Amino acid sequence: MTNPWPNITSPSLIIDKKRVVNNINKLSTKFKKSNTLFRPHFKTHQSVKIGNWFRELGIHQISVSSVEMAWQFYQAGWKDISIVFPFNRREMERVNQMSTDAQINLLIEDLSTLAFLAEHSTHALGLFIKTDCGYHRTGVDVEDVEQIKTLALETLNHKNLNFKGVLAHFGNTYSARSAAQIKAIFNNGLAKMQRVKEELLQIFPEVILSIGDTPSASVMDNFNGVDEMRPGNFVFYDWMQTEIGSCSENQIAAIVLCPVVAKHASRKELIIHGGAVHFSKEKGDKHFGAITDVSEGYSTISIEGTYLKSLSQEHGIVSCGNNFFDKIQIGDLIGVIPIHSCLTANLMKENTIIIE
Amino acid sequence: MTNPWPNITSPSLIIDKKRVVNNINKLSTKFKKSNTLFRPHFKTHQSVKIGNWFRELGIHQISVSSVEMAWQFYQAGWKDISIVFPFNRREMERVNQMSTDAQINLLIEDLSTLAFLAEHSTHALGLFIKTDCGYHRTGVDVEDVEQIKTLALETLNHKNLNFKGVLAHFGNTYSARSAAQIKAIFNNGLAKMQRVKEELLQIFPEVILSIGDTPSASVMDNFNGVDEMRPGNFVFYDWMQTEIGSCSENQIAAIVLCPVVAKHASRKELIIHGGAVHFSKEKGDKHFGAITDVSEGYSTISIEGTYLKSLSQEHGIVSCGNNFFDKIQIGDLIGVIPIHSCLTANLMKENTIIIE
Repeated sequence: MTNPWPNITSPSLIIDKKRVVNNINKLSTKFKKSNTLFRPHFKTHQSVKIGNWFRELGIHQISVSSVEMAWQFYQAGWKDISIVFPFNRREMERVNQMSTDAQINLLIEDLSTLAFLAEHSTHALGLFIKTDCGYHRTGVDVEDVEQIKTLALETLNHKNLNFKGVLAHFGNTYSARSAAQIKAIFNNGLAKMQRVKEELLQIFPEVILSIGDTPSASVMDNFNGVDEMRPGNFVFYDWMQTEIGSCSENQIAAIVLCPVVAKHASRKELIIHGGAVHFSKEKGDKHFGAITDVSEGYSTISIEGTYLKSLSQEHGIVSCGNNFFDKIQIGDLIGVIPIHSCLTANLMKENTIIIE
Repeated sequence: MTNPWPNITSPSLIIDKKRVVNNINKLSTKFKKSNTLFRPHFKTHQSVKIGNWFRELGIHQISVSSVEMAWQFYQAGWKDISIVFPFNRREMERVNQMSTDAQINLLIEDLSTLAFLAEHSTHALGLFIKTDCGYHRTGVDVEDVEQIKTLALETLNHKNLNFKGVLAHFGNTYSARSAAQIKAIFNNGLAKMQRVKEELLQIFPEVILSIGDTPSASVMDNFNGVDEMRPGNFVFYDWMQTEIGSCSENQIAAIVLCPVVAKHASRKELIIHGGAVHFSKEKGDKHFGAITDVSEGYSTISIEGTYLKSLSQEHGIVSCGNNFFDKIQIGDLIGVIPIHSCLTANLMKENTIIIE
């Protein structure tokens, strides 16, 4: 057997390009049926190179979660960027810089931020009103139609501020554990947003509804009534998404290869170089990551009874089923399917390898 | 009132140099009394600049937790480095490079790794045997004196391998919540290690005992019998260490300034730019971080009833007591005392500001 990973010496994120492209195409095809704009969230990969794969597939409008991330993609030539995070007024200057020649869309949820933007913006900006459809992280309560209308109407008084629509992130789909639960959250949230849209249409005939989240994007078949979808995690998926039911293992496009540095036979545990500085400290329903056998190449087939049991800064402890423990030797590499690929990819930016 | 942070636009780690130097000096003074070598762990700050502060205080021997980190400090002129992580044989080449003109110490815990080093090392290496004194992460059971002796004796057969001593990390002090508990763990572990040392002294008269962990280093007064201490976190401390009882708030030398981007009066919650990409996802006993009022400058006085309630990738939700909620406006900065400063500093490398 040849060694598929001759040059890997330390923890490395492996991205499977074919699967990424399949994941993009699958959602793209679904969204087209309902004429829903695909505005992917680039917070998951944060990679100019992977961004280009989207561009090659005809996608030119993106979402990001910070001004810094917007700046990175703006410099890489992206000209239509929604910063889907409550606007941080300390970063006005950079937003003004980008909006000289790019369409920059911001989130607002209160009049004081709107007033700040009215006073300090130097070029046209698109504004979305962030609504809360039950996740309770942030946003105007979606049922508070009066407040949403007040904000939207106020934009009419300011020439740089163009009201674009109403936006939500159905983050509560992450606590779902079945397609039926995801569909219920999606349909419930969308219905509430549609009532808002109906109220706004008379004054803003082009108002749109923008929705996020990978579980909804993955599980729903019908996006009628949704003007824009902004999933991000689907590009790689991860173990959390298999727990939710958004993807199958063979859609997972990112794993981390970790060297085995010690074995403890009495506990059937492997010690790997792979810790919180590689995976963050996100825990799934049962563990910190699923384990795969990468001795013959990239694999996302999780090994039953084998999992990442705990993480410290650099160490990971893998609890093993018997066969896998016996097979793996010190010095071998094992694959870890991260719980949350967004956080792992963020940490592994400088140690990423793409396989085609 | 003048604005103490005129140029902060996004989440920024603030390091208080005076407190760092005090934290170093305090331990240094204690260790000198027992003639214990201070070999600080640089995994917490990972900073060449902060490393220089140690050097200026007369410290020239360090610990790191990866070959990559060793390489960083080797390039910055450090010539005596212990890589206190089970040796990863895939990184032999870089270890050989460094050992041409630096004292590099490695951890071993099994004969196969020792044989690998015997075959592949090109220059002299120091070896510590990693023992497990009850934390059960990795290492040879400290009570398995025969196995430890076997490993130590085997080094005598290989000219590049110099047995230095027996090493442990009393990681179980992190679950302690009182000085008495920490002292019990420390005394118990040290007693076991001393029995090993007694067995080895006849053959290895210069064998040393090396112990880690900030809780022990902070709480113990007497280090008699400990040849070397390797704490790391003490350089900054953090909220976890206040929970353990290792430090007081006024020793904490690192906080993160986070912009407030939204307020939710009904829930008394602030939304900050400050999420898992800034703090990792480590949770303390009760929350993800304590909150301080930084309107008049650096502060580590935690505000009662106010804490970082949850983290997503970029968002943090701060649950507030009434007064603080009313005082803070959108656009203000608040201070977050991280739960685990090692993980926060690792994530904030490029957004760190030192105040003197």
